[in-house]
Amino acid sequence: MDGYLAEYKKRTRTSAKIFAKSSKLHVNGVSHNIRFYEPYPFVVKKSSGKNLTDVDDNDYADYWMGHWSLILGHGPKQVKESLKKQIEKSWMYGTVNEQTIRLSELISKAVPVAEKIRYVTSGTEATMYAVRLARSVTGKGIIAKIDGGWHGYTSDLLKSVSWPFAESESSGMVNEEKIVSIPYNDLEESLKILKKHSKDLAGVIIEPVLGGAGCIPATRDYLKGVEEFVHKNKSLFILDEIVTGFRFRYGCLYPTMKLDPDIVTLGKIAGGGMAIGVMCGKKEIMGFADTAGKKKSERSYVGGGTFSANPASMVTGYATLSSLKSKKSVYSKINSLGEFARKEITKAFDGRVAVTGKGSLFMTHFLQNGISEITNSAQASNCDTQTLQRYHFKMIAHDGIFFLPGKLGAISDAHSKEDIKKIVLASENF
Amino acid sequence: MDGYLAEYKKRTRTSAKIFAKSSKLHVNGVSHNIRFYEPYPFVVKKSSGKNLTDVDDNDYADYWMGHWSLILGHGPKQVKESLKKQIEKSWMYGTVNEQTIRLSELISKAVPVAEKIRYVTSGTEATMYAVRLARSVTGKGIIAKIDGGWHGYTSDLLKSVSWPFAESESSGMVNEEKIVSIPYNDLEESLKILKKHSKDLAGVIIEPVLGGAGCIPATRDYLKGVEEFVHKNKSLFILDEIVTGFRFRYGCLYPTMKLDPDIVTLGKIAGGGMAIGVMCGKKEIMGFADTAGKKKSERSYVGGGTFSANPASMVTGYATLSSLKSKKSVYSKINSLGEFARKEITKAFDGRVAVTGKGSLFMTHFLQNGISEITNSAQASNCDTQTLQRYHFKMIAHDGIFFLPGKLGAISDAHSKEDIKKIVLASENF
Repeated sequence: MDGYLAEYKKRTRTSAKIFAKSSKLHVNGVSHNIRFYEPYPFVVKKSSGKNLTDVDDNDYADYWMGHWSLILGHGPKQVKESLKKQIEKSWMYGTVNEQTIRLSELISKAVPVAEKIRYVTSGTEATMYAVRLARSVTGKGIIAKIDGGWHGYTSDLLKSVSWPFAESESSGMVNEEKIVSIPYNDLEESLKILKKHSKDLAGVIIEPVLGGAGCIPATRDYLKGVEEFVHKNKSLFILDEIVTGFRFRYGCLYPTMKLDPDIVTLGKIAGGGMAIGVMCGKKEIMGFADTAGKKKSERSYVGGGTFSANPASMVTGYATLSSLKSKKSVYSKINSLGEFARKEITKAFDGRVAVTGKGSLFMTHFLQNGISEITNSAQASNCDTQTLQRYHFKMIAHDGIFFLPGKLGAISDAHSKEDIKKIVLASENF
Repeated sequence: MDGYLAEYKKRTRTSAKIFAKSSKLHVNGVSHNIRFYEPYPFVVKKSSGKNLTDVDDNDYADYWMGHWSLILGHGPKQVKESLKKQIEKSWMYGTVNEQTIRLSELISKAVPVAEKIRYVTSGTEATMYAVRLARSVTGKGIIAKIDGGWHGYTSDLLKSVSWPFAESESSGMVNEEKIVSIPYNDLEESLKILKKHSKDLAGVIIEPVLGGAGCIPATRDYLKGVEEFVHKNKSLFILDEIVTGFRFRYGCLYPTMKLDPDIVTLGKIAGGGMAIGVMCGKKEIMGFADTAGKKKSERSYVGGGTFSANPASMVTGYATLSSLKSKKSVYSKINSLGEFARKEITKAFDGRVAVTGKGSLFMTHFLQNGISEITNSAQASNCDTQTLQRYHFKMIAHDGIFFLPGKLGAISDAHSKEDIKKIVLASENF
């Protein structure tokens, strides 16, 4: 690895200088913990199509793609043009605007459960409100989440995110006893835990493809089994589709599995790369957030915020979704590139890895500790994550390929089969 | 009022149609509870300078100004040009970028306590992290806030926001016992409450000018007294300057009162109208958010999020702050317009109102119930808020002037003395 480290340092001298400044100004030098990696992250000056360009003019074929939000690539033309037009009309109104209604018309048609929509500013806010709403609707307090499930930094869901799941994620937490955690894709064990808390269970929140914790699709039987229990228990079934919404098809993942969520959270792709969070759901559920004529203690006090439904995010979201709607071949293209990546990277490593994922999302796990398949986050966490970090760093230093070290990759419409072949080659050379 | 209602409906026919659509798609028709007012809010299609323009082509001189974030007016030229240039380089990187460092250099020089900065996506997120950090640093659980204090929708601070303060703000809250509330500008009573909770007191969070709850400046003695108690108690003193930061001067309000906060939250103006939240503070305090080499349960797990430090927000923030830095006459202009507004509106109502505020922020309170001055939110809440709503609505319907009904007004550099005189005239005619 020393050779790659030297190569990286040589290529990224300006980044090193600028990041030293950043370290003086910011905690860990970054504004998101995961954006730091050793020895220092390169500093970006622009992005376009599949590429990030750093301050030393290195290009990287990007698979981080703006936290997986840029399904059309960086700065796609049709979205850029819409955004520039909007900026002429300004980027902040703080009031009801036409742009919001246009985006909502698209979302409500594409996502059947979105009978009512509320925009917020981030995914963290969307899941926070989903939890609050579930508690309001049911009058109960406990929320169940998945071991390794990531729903943003909200205090209401910050538990059992990373291995070891039993250890707190942070000091300073005061309501962890209201969050319980269940193992992914293990219906029997999950139901056992849910039953134990059934009396005070407000809801269960699940990513239908576990994102941060290993890029692992849930089985339909698992999701269906949890949903059935939850609904029998008069608790709420919440699907967090912030990563998966509009990722595999024009709409959410849940209808392909004939699921019946009460609340769905969206973000990322739905905002076209600008700040957005979306909470949507069944009319009677969302109705609890109606404040009109309700006592304070009866309503579910759901945001909003200064930037919710700002016209810039609404327009980039609209341009992105309408592009996807009019060109659904994007999905067949990127889904099959994902299939190709999983197959060829697995082959390149000759049995040493499992490549998980679905559609255009994929992640390489270096098998160890007798683990032979990855169906939950405990298995993913106990693979050789150090080798994964080295593998990703080698590609950054040597191959002009960027995965955020340790994280799953997302293929965009700006990528080609040639790009994936370069990953395969870089894998063979690792 | 029926006349004004008829006038409004006549002028806003297209808004009525579009808002009917919005009501089908969104809870209450809006994405922020406060954006709704009866009979329906007008729908904006563009904004420029001091004006919002609705879909019926009515212009409104705007004093809501993007939740008070647009100190230079809507779409100011220098910010617009910077943003357009940035969009050519794309609007989302998901990584460390130069744009962030440039903004942080400005903030760290203007705000002495900003020894370390972390960007997040909204004010709600910034205050959530401030609370978490205070709990991590002190190992204690309770946070005190002001009766009527508004720090966004975070579950960690959603208590005692609106009258009656003793009633919960929302159903579905599970950690209200960790929030205690103290009366603004009443040091004796506040210290009594703080002392009762001193053993488990992690920190106190205060807006130096109470925003949502009545546009009321804190006295220096009050803030200083609370700060002294808090520091003696080894708890943290947190100032929420999301509204006040860069509003009255180039920097925060706290240095003018020689205060010594441990953490300061910023937003709004610092982002130039694009999504931003900022948590900054003393180096040793912010250091708890450093994740490197710490056990999960020891670190303070502070975000970040997909959109934190996105280059579009960083550039609009930078262009706004650097404009303010190079043209500090903005402050003397808008502060004196605020002074003029307070004086002349008070006069126009001939003793019936108190107009509170500071600098370019002002709010009219219709006195009743024997209240003769407004120094806290209980007084503000018990004024005649229905008349305030009618006063604001009359200006929307009849005078082409927009205050979000019931909320304080913010003067921007795009406003002139003539504009303020129009408010005075509209007040005389009310």
